[in-house]
Amino acid sequence: MRRAVSIFGATGSIGQNTVDLLRRQGGAGAYDVKVLSGARNVALLAEQARELQADLVVTADETRLADLRAALQGSGIAAAAGAQALREAAEIPVDWAMSAIVGAAGLAPTLAMARAAKTLALANKESLVCAGELLQATCAENGCRLLPVDSEHSAIFQALQGGDGAISRILLTASGGPFRDWTREQMQGATLAQAVAHPNWDMGQRISIDSATMFNKALEVIEARQLFGDTRIEVIVHPQSIIHSMVEFADGAILAQLGAPDMRGAIGFALNWPERQDLPVERLDFAALSRLDFHAPDEGRFPALRLAKQVLAAGGLSGAVFNGAKEAALDRFIAGDIGFLDMAALVEKTLESLHVEASSASSLDGLAAVLDMDARAREIGMAWSA
Amino acid sequence: MRRAVSIFGATGSIGQNTVDLLRRQGGAGAYDVKVLSGARNVALLAEQARELQADLVVTADETRLADLRAALQGSGIAAAAGAQALREAAEIPVDWAMSAIVGAAGLAPTLAMARAAKTLALANKESLVCAGELLQATCAENGCRLLPVDSEHSAIFQALQGGDGAISRILLTASGGPFRDWTREQMQGATLAQAVAHPNWDMGQRISIDSATMFNKALEVIEARQLFGDTRIEVIVHPQSIIHSMVEFADGAILAQLGAPDMRGAIGFALNWPERQDLPVERLDFAALSRLDFHAPDEGRFPALRLAKQVLAAGGLSGAVFNGAKEAALDRFIAGDIGFLDMAALVEKTLESLHVEASSASSLDGLAAVLDMDARAREIGMAWSA
Repeated sequence: MRRAVSIFGATGSIGQNTVDLLRRQGGAGAYDVKVLSGARNVALLAEQARELQADLVVTADETRLADLRAALQGSGIAAAAGAQALREAAEIPVDWAMSAIVGAAGLAPTLAMARAAKTLALANKESLVCAGELLQATCAENGCRLLPVDSEHSAIFQALQGGDGAISRILLTASGGPFRDWTREQMQGATLAQAVAHPNWDMGQRISIDSATMFNKALEVIEARQLFGDTRIEVIVHPQSIIHSMVEFADGAILAQLGAPDMRGAIGFALNWPERQDLPVERLDFAALSRLDFHAPDEGRFPALRLAKQVLAAGGLSGAVFNGAKEAALDRFIAGDIGFLDMAALVEKTLESLHVEASSASSLDGLAAVLDMDARAREIGMAWSA
Repeated sequence: MRRAVSIFGATGSIGQNTVDLLRRQGGAGAYDVKVLSGARNVALLAEQARELQADLVVTADETRLADLRAALQGSGIAAAAGAQALREAAEIPVDWAMSAIVGAAGLAPTLAMARAAKTLALANKESLVCAGELLQATCAENGCRLLPVDSEHSAIFQALQGGDGAISRILLTASGGPFRDWTREQMQGATLAQAVAHPNWDMGQRISIDSATMFNKALEVIEARQLFGDTRIEVIVHPQSIIHSMVEFADGAILAQLGAPDMRGAIGFALNWPERQDLPVERLDFAALSRLDFHAPDEGRFPALRLAKQVLAAGGLSGAVFNGAKEAALDRFIAGDIGFLDMAALVEKTLESLHVEASSASSLDGLAAVLDMDARAREIGMAWSA
C-alpha cells in the first residue's frame, strides 16, 4: 500500500529536496501524495503536483490562485488558496507530513498536521520556538511522532536512538556563517548579498541571513530545549559543518552524527525512519577532509546566542517574542531599512519590552495567545529605531 | 544484591582501571568479587584482592604461588596458580567477567568465561582474532553477552546501539602511534624505548609496541570483522584519539563515539551497560581541542594493515597465525633480536608459510586446533631470519 504523505512548503529548499527524495524512492508509485503547499511559485508547485499526482495543491497566497488553477489545467488536481485552506489541508489524515513552511506562518498548519499525521517531519523550527509546549502536547494527544528535520536536531535524535536518556550535555554545532571571522566593524556594514552567501549549506534567503547573525543557531538552541528537555546546551563553532551535532552522556561518552552538509540527509532520515535507506548524499572521505575545526562562539559579535539563553531562562512565550522580533528585524534588514548588527539590538529591545507579559504566559493558553504575542513583538520590532 | 564479578588480568593496565572503577562504584559493598587473576605482580594482586574481598586469587605464574600465599596471609582468600587453575577459576559463574589477559594466553580462560559469565567484557582481542567463530558460538550457546572493551570496538558498539543494522562501513580510527610521521628509514632504527612511548594512551609495553607498528590496529580490523560481521572496514589515522571510531549507515549518515583517550571510558561502559553512570573521565572541551585531524594510513610504512586484509580474505585460522607470528616478532623485538620493521616481515613470511593449512581450517574445530596453529606460527616466527 502506498504511504499517504503531504508536504507543506513544497517549493522551498527543504520542500524541493523532499520532493526529490520522494521521486527517487518511487514517486507517485510509492507515495499517495495528499497535499502539496507553496506560496508564490505556483509554476513549480503545479509541476511537482503533476509529477507526484497530488490530490490537492494549496498556495498560501490568494492572489496566485488563478495562476495555480491555470497551471493545473486538465490535471484533475484540486487547488485552493489562503491561510484557512492551508489549515484545512493540513487536517487531512496522512502517514507522514513535512512541515517546511518558513517562519511563524507555519504555526497553525503545523499544529493541524500534529493532529492529522502519524509522523510529523518538522523543518519549521518556529513552531517549537514559539509554541513548543503546545505542539508537543498536540502531538502527544494525537499519537503523532515528531521527527526533527533540522540537521542539528536530527543529529541529536540519531545520537539518542540507542540511549537511555542519561544526557549530560548537548553540543550544537554551528558553521559560524559567512561572517565567522569578520570583525564587529565589518559586520556593521554587511550587505544583504554578503549575508545570504552561506559557506556550506544551500538554503533559502531568510535562513541564510539567520545563519549570518547566528539567529538560526539561537532558534535551534530553543528548539533543542523543546525537543530534548531541560539539558545543558552548548554551541560550538565548527566551520566545516561535518559534525551535525553531538550528545554527551552521563559517563562522558559523546555520540556525534556526521555527514555531508546536504539537507537530504536529515530529510531522508525523517522520511525513512525507523529504517535507513540509501540517499543521494555524498559519502564522507576523512582523508580528503583532513581536519575538523572547533572554536567557542563569540557572543559579542553574535548576540543572538546570548539572547537565546535569556529566552530559555524567561520561558513562557518569550520564544514567540524572540522569533517575532527576529522576523521583523529580518524584514527590515532585507528592505535595507536597518543594518546587520541592528537586528540583534532590535530583538533585544523587543524582548525587554515584552519580558513581563511573555514570561508569565504559556503556549498552552492556545494558538491565539501565541499569535497575539508574535504580532505584538513584530509591531514593536517594526517601530524600533536605533 | 551484590553483582558477582571476576577480573582476569587484574594487574595489567585494563585490569587496574577495572579495579579502580569497581572501587569508585562501591567496591566490595557493591560487588561480590569471585576471582582476580594476574601473573608476576602478586603483591598488587594480593592488595587488590584484600581491598575487594575476593574469594579466589590466581596467578598464571606457578613460581609466584608461594609469594602470593604469603601476601594473602590471614585474609582468608584462597590462592591458586597455573594455566589449569586459571581455566577452572574462569568457569566460576558470575554476572560479569573482565577478560584482560594479554595475548593468546587469554584464549582458554576467555572461552571458559564465555561459558560461565552472563556478560563478558572482552579486552583480550586475541580471543576474537585467533578464535572468533569459536568464541561467538560459545557465547551464543551459553547466553553470554559479549561486550568489547577496546575503545574502538566499544565506540562502534555504542554507535550501533540504536541502529537497525544497515551498516555500510566501519571507520576504525588509529592514532598512528609514536612513528606516525617517521620515515621508513627512521623506523628501521627505532629502539624499544621509542616504540613504547605512545603519544595518547597509557597502556602496557606490548600493546604500545603494537601501536607503533600498527599491528594493534591490524588486530582490531580482524576483531571488528568478528564482532560486527562482513562489513567494509576502513582505517583512518586520527592523531588525537578523540573520535574512537565511527559507523556509516546505508543513508550515508555516520555515528561516531568520542571521548578523552582514557580506557576507563570503554571499561566503564562495559561495566554499567545497558546503563551509563558517571565515570572519572575527563569531559571533552572542543574549543580547547581546537581541531581533529585525519589522514589515510600508509601501508608502506605500516604493512600490518595490508596483512590484516590478507588475513580477512584468507579466513579460517589465519588470524591465529597472524597473532602467533606477531607475538613471536614482539618477543624478538623486545629481546633486541630483530629490528622494528623486521616484525612485519616476519609475520608476512609466517602467513605465507601457513597459508594453505590456516585458510582451510576453522576455530570451530576447537581450542586445540587454534592453539596448535598458534604454536606453529610462533615456531616459524622464532626461526625466521631477515
